[in-house]
Amino acid sequence: MAKVITMGEIMLRLSTPGNTRFTQSNNFDVVYGGGEANVAVSLANYGHDAYFVSKLPKHEIGQCAVNSLRQFGVNTDFIARGGDRVGIYFLETGASMRASKVVYDRADSAIALADVSDFDFDAIFEGADWFHWTGITPALSEKSAVVLEEALKAAKKHGVTVSVDLNFRKKLWTPEQAQKVMTNLMQYVDVCIGNEEDAEKCLGFKPGETNVEQGELELEGYKNIFKEMQEKFNFKFLATTLRESHSASENGWSALIYDGNEFYHSRHYNIKIVDRVGGGDSFSGGLIHGLLTRPNFKDALEYAVAASALKHTIPGDYNLVMEDEVEVLVQGDASGRVQR
Amino acid sequence: MAKVITMGEIMLRLSTPGNTRFTQSNNFDVVYGGGEANVAVSLANYGHDAYFVSKLPKHEIGQCAVNSLRQFGVNTDFIARGGDRVGIYFLETGASMRASKVVYDRADSAIALADVSDFDFDAIFEGADWFHWTGITPALSEKSAVVLEEALKAAKKHGVTVSVDLNFRKKLWTPEQAQKVMTNLMQYVDVCIGNEEDAEKCLGFKPGETNVEQGELELEGYKNIFKEMQEKFNFKFLATTLRESHSASENGWSALIYDGNEFYHSRHYNIKIVDRVGGGDSFSGGLIHGLLTRPNFKDALEYAVAASALKHTIPGDYNLVMEDEVEVLVQGDASGRVQR
Amino acid sequence: MAKVITMGEIMLRLSTPGNTRFTQSNNFDVVYGGGEANVAVSLANYGHDAYFVSKLPKHEIGQCAVNSLRQFGVNTDFIARGGDRVGIYFLETGASMRASKVVYDRADSAIALADVSDFDFDAIFEGADWFHWTGITPALSEKSAVVLEEALKAAKKHGVTVSVDLNFRKKLWTPEQAQKVMTNLMQYVDVCIGNEEDAEKCLGFKPGETNVEQGELELEGYKNIFKEMQEKFNFKFLATTLRESHSASENGWSALIYDGNEFYHSRHYNIKIVDRVGGGDSFSGGLIHGLLTRPNFKDALEYAVAASALKHTIPGDYNLVMEDEVEVLVQGDASGRVQR
Amino acid sequence: MAKVITMGEIMLRLSTPGNTRFTQSNNFDVVYGGGEANVAVSLANYGHDAYFVSKLPKHEIGQCAVNSLRQFGVNTDFIARGGDRVGIYFLETGASMRASKVVYDRADSAIALADVSDFDFDAIFEGADWFHWTGITPALSEKSAVVLEEALKAAKKHGVTVSVDLNFRKKLWTPEQAQKVMTNLMQYVDVCIGNEEDAEKCLGFKPGETNVEQGELELEGYKNIFKEMQEKFNFKFLATTLRESHSASENGWSALIYDGNEFYHSRHYNIKIVDRVGGGDSFSGGLIHGLLTRPNFKDALEYAVAASALKHTIPGDYNLVMEDEVEVLVQGDASGRVQR
Amino acid sequence: MAKVITMGEIMLRLSTPGNTRFTQSNNFDVVYGGGEANVAVSLANYGHDAYFVSKLPKHEIGQCAVNSLRQFGVNTDFIARGGDRVGIYFLETGASMRASKVVYDRADSAIALADVSDFDFDAIFEGADWFHWTGITPALSEKSAVVLEEALKAAKKHGVTVSVDLNFRKKLWTPEQAQKVMTNLMQYVDVCIGNEEDAEKCLGFKPGETNVEQGELELEGYKNIFKEMQEKFNFKFLATTLRESHSASENGWSALIYDGNEFYHSRHYNIKIVDRVGGGDSFSGGLIHGLLTRPNFKDALEYAVAASALKHTIPGDYNLVMEDEVEVLVQGDASGRVQR
Amino acid sequence: MAKVITMGEIMLRLSTPGNTRFTQSNNFDVVYGGGEANVAVSLANYGHDAYFVSKLPKHEIGQCAVNSLRQFGVNTDFIARGGDRVGIYFLETGASMRASKVVYDRADSAIALADVSDFDFDAIFEGADWFHWTGITPALSEKSAVVLEEALKAAKKHGVTVSVDLNFRKKLWTPEQAQKVMTNLMQYVDVCIGNEEDAEKCLGFKPGETNVEQGELELEGYKNIFKEMQEKFNFKFLATTLRESHSASENGWSALIYDGNEFYHSRHYNIKIVDRVGGGDSFSGGLIHGLLTRPNFKDALEYAVAASALKHTIPGDYNLVMEDEVEVLVQGDASGRVQR
Repeated sequence: MAKVITMGEIMLRLSTPGNTRFTQSNNFDVVYGGGEANVAVSLANYGHDAYFVSKLPKHEIGQCAVNSLRQFGVNTDFIARGGDRVGIYFLETGASMRASKVVYDRADSAIALADVSDFDFDAIFEGADWFHWTGITPALSEKSAVVLEEALKAAKKHGVTVSVDLNFRKKLWTPEQAQKVMTNLMQYVDVCIGNEEDAEKCLGFKPGETNVEQGELELEGYKNIFKEMQEKFNFKFLATTLRESHSASENGWSALIYDGNEFYHSRHYNIKIVDRVGGGDSFSGGLIHGLLTRPNFKDALEYAVAASALKHTIPGDYNLVMEDEVEVLVQGDASGRVQR
Repeated sequence: MAKVITMGEIMLRLSTPGNTRFTQSNNFDVVYGGGEANVAVSLANYGHDAYFVSKLPKHEIGQCAVNSLRQFGVNTDFIARGGDRVGIYFLETGASMRASKVVYDRADSAIALADVSDFDFDAIFEGADWFHWTGITPALSEKSAVVLEEALKAAKKHGVTVSVDLNFRKKLWTPEQAQKVMTNLMQYVDVCIGNEEDAEKCLGFKPGETNVEQGELELEGYKNIFKEMQEKFNFKFLATTLRESHSASENGWSALIYDGNEFYHSRHYNIKIVDRVGGGDSFSGGLIHGLLTRPNFKDALEYAVAASALKHTIPGDYNLVMEDEVEVLVQGDASGRVQR
Repeated sequence: MAKVITMGEIMLRLSTPGNTRFTQSNNFDVVYGGGEANVAVSLANYGHDAYFVSKLPKHEIGQCAVNSLRQFGVNTDFIARGGDRVGIYFLETGASMRASKVVYDRADSAIALADVSDFDFDAIFEGADWFHWTGITPALSEKSAVVLEEALKAAKKHGVTVSVDLNFRKKLWTPEQAQKVMTNLMQYVDVCIGNEEDAEKCLGFKPGETNVEQGELELEGYKNIFKEMQEKFNFKFLATTLRESHSASENGWSALIYDGNEFYHSRHYNIKIVDRVGGGDSFSGGLIHGLLTRPNFKDALEYAVAASALKHTIPGDYNLVMEDEVEVLVQGDASGRVQR
Repeated sequence: MAKVITMGEIMLRLSTPGNTRFTQSNNFDVVYGGGEANVAVSLANYGHDAYFVSKLPKHEIGQCAVNSLRQFGVNTDFIARGGDRVGIYFLETGASMRASKVVYDRADSAIALADVSDFDFDAIFEGADWFHWTGITPALSEKSAVVLEEALKAAKKHGVTVSVDLNFRKKLWTPEQAQKVMTNLMQYVDVCIGNEEDAEKCLGFKPGETNVEQGELELEGYKNIFKEMQEKFNFKFLATTLRESHSASENGWSALIYDGNEFYHSRHYNIKIVDRVGGGDSFSGGLIHGLLTRPNFKDALEYAVAASALKHTIPGDYNLVMEDEVEVLVQGDASGRVQR
Repeated sequence: MAKVITMGEIMLRLSTPGNTRFTQSNNFDVVYGGGEANVAVSLANYGHDAYFVSKLPKHEIGQCAVNSLRQFGVNTDFIARGGDRVGIYFLETGASMRASKVVYDRADSAIALADVSDFDFDAIFEGADWFHWTGITPALSEKSAVVLEEALKAAKKHGVTVSVDLNFRKKLWTPEQAQKVMTNLMQYVDVCIGNEEDAEKCLGFKPGETNVEQGELELEGYKNIFKEMQEKFNFKFLATTLRESHSASENGWSALIYDGNEFYHSRHYNIKIVDRVGGGDSFSGGLIHGLLTRPNFKDALEYAVAASALKHTIPGDYNLVMEDEVEVLVQGDASGRVQR
Repeated sequence: MAKVITMGEIMLRLSTPGNTRFTQSNNFDVVYGGGEANVAVSLANYGHDAYFVSKLPKHEIGQCAVNSLRQFGVNTDFIARGGDRVGIYFLETGASMRASKVVYDRADSAIALADVSDFDFDAIFEGADWFHWTGITPALSEKSAVVLEEALKAAKKHGVTVSVDLNFRKKLWTPEQAQKVMTNLMQYVDVCIGNEEDAEKCLGFKPGETNVEQGELELEGYKNIFKEMQEKFNFKFLATTLRESHSASENGWSALIYDGNEFYHSRHYNIKIVDRVGGGDSFSGGLIHGLLTRPNFKDALEYAVAASALKHTIPGDYNLVMEDEVEVLVQGDASGRVQR
């Protein structure tokens, strides 16, 4: 059991029930989620001492976000309380050729306006084993980028392994802004997760010819980019998920990892989708657990891919699966037979 | 933006939630819908000045039907208020090899008992561009057939383009009754939509050998019938959807159009079905919009097919998609990737 | 219309709504079900005079179980009332590669603690045509096995045909315990339903090489076992369902029957699963009806397979389909077209 | 345990959830109910052999109505199946000074169009002890009045006690029509239930000065009318509920009975209302049970008033209380303390 | 039927179902509302040509707000579309001594950031009869105060009667800020609605000794303030509601009006509360309708009080009652008897 | 902030929604609760370091119980995991004169079968300030009584203050059994909470003449018993709630405390009940907090009574109120005005 720190924004997610559209729903399902929070829940589920660091208002909606994490065993002791807003996103779940839609309403959330003084990073990273963040956090605001770099310095000072999910979000910043910030932050990173679009938009690497919408994958293109990235930033591991978007209801799913020496392409899954939001985060959570507990990076990747495949069958952002459930799928049983 | 008139019955639809059967549900989802009302909503969504003409009781259930149309921007100023009943249909949504079931309870609805005196057709068609009706309206009652013909005469007097969806309903009339009424009404029609069964039952054209339940399509048979129909009634356009019913959960979907000169068979979609009621109406709505706004009848058809494919992913009778959403699918993106 | 007796446990089933996991639901859907009760509901739906024999507490939860059977026309006159508990099972419905989960909480239910004195078997079997039980009933407790054998003796005394669904449940007893009890009870059985695992665990027959999780079927292996079983116990008919578990969302489905002379393998269905619990029971119900009403055992089997295929599309344990609905599928219409 | 026959219409009730108005609900709660069906359920709950006689369509909505009765143990063997419609009523539950609203849609229901040939009254009344009907049944249609009189003649032939709840419904007939039919039918009645408005509208007796909306009761006025009615029709018992409508949320509740000799005014209850529909029917059901089982008509009335007071706390038309629950209230415990 | 303009913010309201607290709900009921929008809906319900003027984002949540108004017949043609946010408020409905809670999240909404250039006030007020606004609108932002004053000038230019509900909101501005802005805007106002707190905080009038929490009312104090206000601003009418907050479940309710000459205190209602949000707005809507259609200001006030009493029984912000329903209560029938 | 330990059973509570009866519900609301767990949640809400000690199965239902506590900040580190059952209780919420009903199904739960070896009481009570238990825990089983006494010995060894809520449960043991066990355990108790029935059934003190169902209170009787109890067991404080059960919808509520010297009767509340289960536990939780933080036992009692009055307005067993919310009520504001 490792002490794992994640840091970022947790949002209130408001989604239409079933397959209804925004314009025909008069109630919303309520869950909470966000890239780093989702990873924290995965790691708590796998038995780690998982901390989520953020800032949330003192009011009831802020408290609900805290409670949603505590419920699954995430430690919330380092969440600063203050500010006015919990970021919100509205979700409409698509089907078949109708895409899911997200409407963001996250400007000026408490964490986006937080200061370095809100956090005691020495206390946070004391005895920690791993720190995970995503490219969303420094994109929230200029202050957030500053706070994050302080966290990264503290992490390195305490000898903590650092992973990032690049996760470019075009609603939050431009590629130019992203590259300026992210390129600098890569110096603190040991494990880098991201697809071709992320590599291009966040770090300026020219993409290959993957056409994800066509469901075709250009593995070779990835390999070239990964090599370039590894050379430039000296990552220990580089990984990406490989999604084939056949429709909103069915996706292909696998992943690729590179240890600077060897590429490994995981087993491939065909998924009937219940909820694909948080799919990438569940991969990050699975990969961190895999790298912490599995004998080699290939087994780690298989764990991560199986874990994230299962996420797609679970409503909400969090990946509510336990280690034994992931392990059954890693061992090859995708039959879905009733477990009595 | 065109002024488009539709006229017919709007019903209260009571459907079991999820995949429950009638005998196991103790609540019903409530929406409103009907062939022509569904077309009106589509056209309002695409930005037209869409009117739905009908008669509805003054009581609260009648008002709810009005409100459901207003909500989506349909103009309800020409809905006469009076009578006792809103027609009802009960719907149980099937799955896999279990078919959806409809139980009708629509006799003696306000519109079925309406008179010509309930409507001021000169006001209704003043400045109008298009009038759409379906074969359900004249089948409601003998009075309805009379009222409809008055509407059609007024439409022609005002130079309005007229489209019909033949839509034979065996619970409402016999083929003999239908052919007598419908053959006469074809003199007013510019654009005729209907499949082989409609052509046979409503107009007496002998069908080819399409076996829709087998998922096989006899395009050639359609072409022969369309030619015969065009010769007899001199339609500007003839169109039909081509449904392959693999199961209650999955259908193939495309369409055929004929301009009296050339046949055009659209792109083909494989659909995971959420709700297929209103699928044909969404095709009519898409085709009218396509013919009003697209440069040629082929583009118009592709718009209609894409629009109606999307309808199958949306609960309720109405096709709650906007023009930009249809256009994305027309342009080829059926990947269902999350739109953030 | 035959008088058919079933006897066993009916449980309160508490299931999470939609595809939610136990840890994210704050309400449960409530139905009642159990192997023999499910068969009774099927037979009542097909028009038979179906009795369910059991013991249930006098309190409201016991009454709800009675009401759920009465609602569908099952005769509950021979349900003894007393004891403290209704057995419970918790169900989480899986999707794609995530399996459904059942948590049992059924120890010490009223029927498991019932005595022979709770039942008047002469009254129960007076004029009866058929008696169906499953391997779950004698596994509930030692007392249950005694009560069941008394029921079987009475059934034989009254000339009633007896069917069993072997249905081995590893949470209730060991193979050793099962074989000791079940081998003895086979003397009363005319029609035996069970798969290879049941044959091995309940009766000690060595399995062939069916690997159900791989979706491959070893029909030959079944044939050998069925022959051995038939020789030993002189059953009139032996049958089994053949499930191919592709995922929690899709299964292949067919069945095999043997009349001591000839094997018959049914038509094969691909099923999109809504709820697969009770699938085996719906096969038993369909087979009993088929053997009672169809001209030969092959037609009986086709009825049973079609009936149980439809069950997979219906929420809850009970197979809420009528004979005409099954017959449509037997006749080959799996198109799922809307029935207006 | 007596054999009790009730006959009339059972309707599909569609009500808005909680306190929502028709214009803001997009789902309806579904139950079934009707004056005589409600009485049948009460009597089945109290342990009687209760039959409901009616006619219902063969389709699924008709079947749901049958199932709703079977669930609570009502015998449905004499419900004829055929016709097209189940009568419907829409209900919006009020609160405080906002009244509940009912919109009826019951014309041409199967029972309203039923013939004498649909029923075998000799079989129905063979061995019966009691027959209950309401003034709604003869008001449904002229045919219904004929069918009902045939039933009443058969009841009398078999020596069955007859009770009526006058229940004038102004949407179904005029006072003139009602008086013509009802005055004739009183010859068959032993126990007559009705308030002043019923006495006036159904039978032509001039009302006293009860102003129910003011919550004031003119007991003396009732006594005069009851004496006149008793003299004219020679009823064994005359009874009425006395409702004080303070608001849609709170009512006063008591009842008056007259045995031709003595008046008895029951205990008075203040009720917080959950659902007052069916309140009068629950009084009839309680009174029939009371007269069948209690030592005197005063105890019978107290049972009826307590039973109907409890009804107001239960959603739906049916009074889902058992005899022991009513008895607790009769004995004076209205404390509502948790029963563990 | 008058043309009535209202202008302000419409918010997305997210409320916990039933009486659940924020920390125990995992879904929210969704409605839309806001002081001026609520008034617009009331006036549309009473048959007026009601316009709501605001600015809303083009995305789906903005569209839902538009649709919610169109559904009830409010004209939305003058709602500018643009900006990013729909203001949000979270509501938890209290009970007994537990107060309802509102958490606001409305900063930087589209209307708060709107410019004068977003609106064509000449077109808006062309032919208009009445303009209603509340003290919330100028409090949203400095720009809002500017836009509002432009609207007021245009209204006056077109001879439109102007009413205001002072509605001080301490989360939006300080009394100092409010008084500076509001005192200036009173020059445009004909009808002023507000209680003592509003008069003090918005306009600087010293309050009397009303202690609303004690349920005691100091009518005399109101009279003094009203006289002072009338003298200073020369209002045609001054009105206030008089709420006695006994608990979150029960309130007393009446109102006071002053025409510069005479005071009139309305009938008093005791209300069982379903949802009291929007109670004040429903009073404004009722008063405007009353002043437009009733023979004198006293009848106008009685209409307003009855209308707003009814609002407390309806979930959501909008007062979904029709004129005939209000009139029944004005006429004195608060019995809540079922309307069949 | 104190470290507070509670120990006992936490159950799965399954309740019918709204006011529906067991026989008409097809889904259950799911929460978790139990006397000591409820107290732990209250204390966590008030800011204490609250631990709940128990035993729960490893399966998902056990995990859900753990999560429900973690969500509200209760420390679950000392919950042993193992065994088969989570105790269950079914709840139907009454209204007006219809009482709420509880059906228990709690035999053989994991905690009832737990051993002393399941707990490390030295670790548990290390540094603890308070230990709270109820008379339910020793009643669960003979083993439970043994485990509890070990806990009490350890608590005393660590100098922990001990409180008990006597809470006699007739379904679990007889007065004779209770008195034998409880009288012995009183030696460890500092603060004793219980009403007259508890005092009699658990400890053998003869009750006075309180007739709670009549809503009358015999304060004098309580005073005599409290004096006798204090003399015998030398409690620091004795307290009881005083409930007046007017109906299932309305109760009177106050409390009495005795410090061995002086009696203090709290303020009295009239409560509109949402959910009264857990009312007594919320009093215990409030009293512990009050005695830990308030200057005197009278203020402590007022806090406890206000806290428990608020509980009656909240669905579920847990009292989800924060200290500031209780304090508002203690300060006298029961107006229920919206808090914006």
